Amino acid sequence: MNRPKSLFLTDSNLGAATDLYQLTMAAGLHKYGMDDWATFELWVRGMPEKRSFFVAAGLEQALHYILNLGFSKESVDYIKGLPVFSNVEGAFFKYLEGFKFSGDIFAAPEGSVFFGDEPVLRVSAPLIECQVMETYLLSTLGFQSLIASKAARVALAAQGKSVIDFGTRRAHGAQAGVLAARAGYIGGCAGTSNVLAGCELGLPVMGTMAHSWVMAVGDEEEAFKKFDNVFPDDSVLLIDTYDTINGARLAAKINEKLKGVRLDSGDLVKLSKETRAILDNEGLMNAKIVVSGDLNEHKIKHLLDEGAPVDVFGVGTEMVVSKDCPSLGCVYKLVEQVVDGQTIPKIKLSRDKSTYPFKKQIYRVVNSKGKFVGDVIGLANERFDPNDANFQSQFSNAMDISKQAGGQSGLKIKTLLEPVIAGGKICVDLPGISDIQQTARENIAALPEFCKKLDNNKPYTVAKSNTLEREKEKAVENLTRVSKK
Amino acid sequence: MNRPKSLFLTDSNLGAATDLYQLTMAAGLHKYGMDDWATFELWVRGMPEKRSFFVAAGLEQALHYILNLGFSKESVDYIKGLPVFSNVEGAFFKYLEGFKFSGDIFAAPEGSVFFGDEPVLRVSAPLIECQVMETYLLSTLGFQSLIASKAARVALAAQGKSVIDFGTRRAHGAQAGVLAARAGYIGGCAGTSNVLAGCELGLPVMGTMAHSWVMAVGDEEEAFKKFDNVFPDDSVLLIDTYDTINGARLAAKINEKLKGVRLDSGDLVKLSKETRAILDNEGLMNAKIVVSGDLNEHKIKHLLDEGAPVDVFGVGTEMVVSKDCPSLGCVYKLVEQVVDGQTIPKIKLSRDKSTYPFKKQIYRVVNSKGKFVGDVIGLANERFDPNDANFQSQFSNAMDISKQAGGQSGLKIKTLLEPVIAGGKICVDLPGISDIQQTARENIAALPEFCKKLDNNKPYTVAKSNTLEREKEKAVENLTRVSKK
Repeated sequence: MNRPKSLFLTDSNLGAATDLYQLTMAAGLHKYGMDDWATFELWVRGMPEKRSFFVAAGLEQALHYILNLGFSKESVDYIKGLPVFSNVEGAFFKYLEGFKFSGDIFAAPEGSVFFGDEPVLRVSAPLIECQVMETYLLSTLGFQSLIASKAARVALAAQGKSVIDFGTRRAHGAQAGVLAARAGYIGGCAGTSNVLAGCELGLPVMGTMAHSWVMAVGDEEEAFKKFDNVFPDDSVLLIDTYDTINGARLAAKINEKLKGVRLDSGDLVKLSKETRAILDNEGLMNAKIVVSGDLNEHKIKHLLDEGAPVDVFGVGTEMVVSKDCPSLGCVYKLVEQVVDGQTIPKIKLSRDKSTYPFKKQIYRVVNSKGKFVGDVIGLANERFDPNDANFQSQFSNAMDISKQAGGQSGLKIKTLLEPVIAGGKICVDLPGISDIQQTARENIAALPEFCKKLDNNKPYTVAKSNTLEREKEKAVENLTRVSKK
Repeated sequence: MNRPKSLFLTDSNLGAATDLYQLTMAAGLHKYGMDDWATFELWVRGMPEKRSFFVAAGLEQALHYILNLGFSKESVDYIKGLPVFSNVEGAFFKYLEGFKFSGDIFAAPEGSVFFGDEPVLRVSAPLIECQVMETYLLSTLGFQSLIASKAARVALAAQGKSVIDFGTRRAHGAQAGVLAARAGYIGGCAGTSNVLAGCELGLPVMGTMAHSWVMAVGDEEEAFKKFDNVFPDDSVLLIDTYDTINGARLAAKINEKLKGVRLDSGDLVKLSKETRAILDNEGLMNAKIVVSGDLNEHKIKHLLDEGAPVDVFGVGTEMVVSKDCPSLGCVYKLVEQVVDGQTIPKIKLSRDKSTYPFKKQIYRVVNSKGKFVGDVIGLANERFDPNDANFQSQFSNAMDISKQAGGQSGLKIKTLLEPVIAGGKICVDLPGISDIQQTARENIAALPEFCKKLDNNKPYTVAKSNTLEREKEKAVENLTRVSKK
C-alpha cells in the first residue's frame, strides 16, 4: 500500500495501453476468425480554425510502439479476469500472449507538412492487429504533430530569432514534456530546457537561472556574481526578481563577456529596449536578451513589431499544451478489407463524419520553384501528370495553377506516404532529429505565403481525385442498397 | 540508427527529467556550499476564469518521483559533458551520483478541493534538493489536478449519471492518457476506457464497440448479432455507423437482455429520445443509452435540460486535455531559508507575481453542517478560533460568516496540509483510488452551492491571515531597504 505507483509506460505494458473496446473487438474478430487483411488510415478531421498547416511528428515513437507491441502475462491475466471477457474462450488470450505486428505501415516522414483529412499513416495487416493499435497511434502522432505545428507558428513569428522550449513544467505530465521538447524542435525550436530530451535525442539544451537563485543568495548583485563565477562563459542572468532596470544595471557590470540576461515579467517592449541600452552602454553588444513569460506567436509578433531587441524567446505553457488548440481531431478508420481475395471498400456514413474508401496517397503538386501548389488525395496507385491539360482542368480552379510561377508547366508531383514497416519489420532508415527539423524547415518554406501568416483564413487546397470521389459514390450506393434491403 | 526510441520515463532517468537551469543552479549551490535548509511551496497562481475550484490529484505520482529521484551514471555523464558545465568541478557530479531526497514534504491529500494561490505542497530540504524537483512536481501535480478539476465539472453536469473517460486517444501522449484516467476518476468519473489504468489502479474499465466493427462485418445486423454473441451480458452496440434510428431498431431485436446502445453523432437529444422509445417498445427498459462525441459539461447540461434519456456519458477530448483551460499556472517558489540558525523569509517582488514568505498552511473554515465557508492562508503554526469575535471580525466580510447556517457559532477549522514524507521517507498511508474519489466527492459536496454552478463567477473566499500579511510587509520593507542600499 505504501509504494506509490509511477504508472510509467514500459515496453512490457504496451498492449494494455489501449481502449478496452479495441480488445473486446479483437476478441470478437478472433472468435469469428476474421483475420482478413485490412487497411486503416489515420488523419486529422478538418483544419482547426487557428491552424493553416500541420507538421508531422511522432512517427519514431509510433514505430517504437508498433515494433514492441505485445501483451505481458500480467496484462493478459488482467484482461482475462475482467467480467466482460467471461464468455471469451482461452484461445483468444493465447493469441494475445503471442501477439506481434506482422503488417505494413506507410507514413508521411516526420517534418512533412500536411493538412486536414490527409491520411498521414496507413496500416495494412490482419484486422485485429490494425484494431488494437488505434488508441496509441492516435495519441502519439496526434500529440507530437499538435506541438510541432504550434511550434512552427511560434518559430515563424520569431522571424529567425531563436525560440527555446521552456514548457516542460506545464506539460501534461513529465512524459508529455519530453515528447513536446522533441516535437517543438521539429517544428522549429532551437532547443529545449528539458535535460532528458537533450540526453536521449541530442537536442541542444538551454537554460538561464530562476528567481529562486537570486532569492536564495538574497543580494541580487552577489547572486549574479556567484552564478557568473560558476558559468563564466554561459551565464544568462535573470534580472526581474526585484526590479528589472536595476537588475539590468547590476548584470551589466558582472562580466565583460556576459552571455545574456533574461526578462520574465513587466512591459517587455519597454524593458527590453532599456535593458539593451544599458548593456550596450557597458560595451556588452554581444550579450543576448532572452525574454519569457506566457509568450505565444502573437505576443512574439507584437514584440518584434514594436522593435523589442529580443534575441531569444523562451516559450512555455502556450506552446507545450498548444493552448489555443490543445487537441487535434485525429481519427483512424478502416478503409478497405480483403474478403475472399476481393478488396472491398470500407466507408462510414455517420453524419459529418463520413469517410473515403481504399488505400490512399497524398499527391503534392510542386511548382518549378519548389513551392507547394496544392494536394490531391487519391487512391494509392494513381498516376497524375500535373502538366497535362486533363489534370489542370480538374484542379486548376482549386489550385490556381494558372497563376503559379512556372505557369502551367514545370509542375511536379511528390507523393508523401512511404513504406516504413514491411512484414512487421522496419524498412526505413530513421532520420536523425536534425534532419527531421530540416525537413520541416524546407516544407514550411515551400508553403504558399498565406499559409505562413498567423491569422490566415484561406485554406491550402486539398482536392480529392476524380477516381477517389467515384469510388466513394460507388461505395455509398452499394451500402445504401444493402442497408435498405 | 534503426532502433526507434520510446523516450519513456523510467525510475533510472528521473534525475534528467528536469529543466537544465535546475541543474546549473544546483551546481552553483553546491560550489558555494549553500546547503541551507529551505522551504519551497507549490500553488496555482490565481483561479482561471472558467474554474471555481480545483481538485488535488497527482500526489501519489509525485511521491513516487521524490522517493526514487536520482541520477544514473548515463545521466551524470551526459550532464558532465554539456559545454555549460565545463567549469564545474567533479565534486558536483559525485554529489549528483549520490543524490537522494532527505527532506520533508507536506501536502493536501488527493481529492481535496483547493483554490488559486493556496500552497498544496510544501518541500523542506537542503536548497539543492528542493530546487531540482521543481519541474517534475509542477507537471505532475499540475496536470492531474487540471484533469481532476475538469472531470469534477463534467460529473457535476451529469447530475449523477455516469461519466466515462474515453479520452486516451486524444491525450498528450499515451502516458498522459493513463494519468488522465486516474485524475478523471478522482474528479468523479465512473470509469475509463484505458486498460492500463484499469490494470494498474483497479479502475473500472468500460467500452462499447467502434464503427470499425460494424464496417468490418459489413452488415449492421450481423455485426450486432456477432458482437452480442461474444459478450452476451455486456454488449453495448454502437448504432450510428450508417443510420441511427435504423441501427436502434436492429439493436433492439438482438438480445432481450441487451446491455445498451451508444450514439456518437447527430442530434443527440432527438436521437436519444427516439432510441429510448424503440428500446422500450421492445421491452428493453433496462438497456442503457450511452452517448459520446465531443461532449463537455455544457453539452451534457444541455442534453439533460432537454430531457435526453441518457444513462452514460462517454467524454473524451474535452476532458482529457481540459480543452477550455488546458493548463494551470502552477508555480513553485522559495518561501524561507535557514541561514546560520535563523529562519529568513523569502519573497519575490516581480510585478503581478509577488509571493508571501514562510511556511504556510491552509485553514479551512467549516460550518456546523460540514460546509466549507472560506479558507485562510496563514503561517504554518497559526491557531485560529473561528468562533472567536476577533477571527469573525477579521474575516466576516470576506466569508459572510454571519449569514452562514450555524450563525456565528459551531464553526470549525480544518487544516489541509499534512506530512507525507519525513526525513526522505514516506510517512503516510497512501489511500486507495476509491478512497481518493470519495474524498473528492465529499469535498465537492461541501462546497458552497455557487461554486458548483458551471458558469459561476463568484469567487470562493480565500483570505490571508493578518500575521501573514504583516510578515510579507516586513519582508518587502526589508528587501526594499536592502536593494536601495
